[in-house]
Amino acid sequence: MNCIFCDIIDKKSNAEILFENECVLAFLDIRPVNYGHTLVIPKIHYENFLALPESELSELIKVTKDISGAIVSSLNPQGFNIVANNGTAAGQSVFHFHFHIIPRFNQDDFRFRPKLKEYNVGSMHEYADKIRAAVLI
Amino acid sequence: MNCIFCDIIDKKSNAEILFENECVLAFLDIRPVNYGHTLVIPKIHYENFLALPESELSELIKVTKDISGAIVSSLNPQGFNIVANNGTAAGQSVFHFHFHIIPRFNQDDFRFRPKLKEYNVGSMHEYADKIRAAVLI
Repeated sequence: MNCIFCDIIDKKSNAEILFENECVLAFLDIRPVNYGHTLVIPKIHYENFLALPESELSELIKVTKDISGAIVSSLNPQGFNIVANNGTAAGQSVFHFHFHIIPRFNQDDFRFRPKLKEYNVGSMHEYADKIRAAVLI
Repeated sequence: MNCIFCDIIDKKSNAEILFENECVLAFLDIRPVNYGHTLVIPKIHYENFLALPESELSELIKVTKDISGAIVSSLNPQGFNIVANNGTAAGQSVFHFHFHIIPRFNQDDFRFRPKLKEYNVGSMHEYADKIRAAVLI
């Protein structure tokens, strides 16, 4: 399997590694939305969020928080986004799960600008019912 | 303190609640990017990601994963985003931390379209050094 993130983990590809422990790696995105844009990945290859086992997800989000704190204290952004894209339709381009940490500044060029939808009468409840019926917790 | 999410937790405001346990609540966003767009919040009011204690963060991301699975199995989106905005500059509008789960479809209207930056020679290493020096793990 050819995976550019696995190559970084295996030190077959270079990266600016910010942090590494036995199950998580954090490094700079080479095509940043803003400078300091960081990716946090599990060392085991999981394609997406739903494939991550609970223990690794917990460790991954903990490291994502700690590295976010380091980005905030070192680069002084005015905000930051945590983003994970799952599936091509959601913008995922590398199919090894990763959290983006994106430092943000007022007036930077990165805007989501979504066209927000509205629910028709009753349809919000129908959507909620569908999802509630599928909750397995 | 006036917080619309705390009002939902206290049942002073209505919401289409998808899941609730002792420390986490998941409900439909009333202004969805796509139908089924869900917010997952801690019941205790924390302003942002960095303020969340480790144990609650772990529970919050676990529920976010489980509800993502329910959205995927019930609504069959072609992908989904996990997003958390921290700070006005990052698009945060309610200052009670929340993960967005946004179901995504090919050709939907939600595109990030960021203008990606490039690092000048040496500057990527400088940014990495700054952040590494601030890592407290």
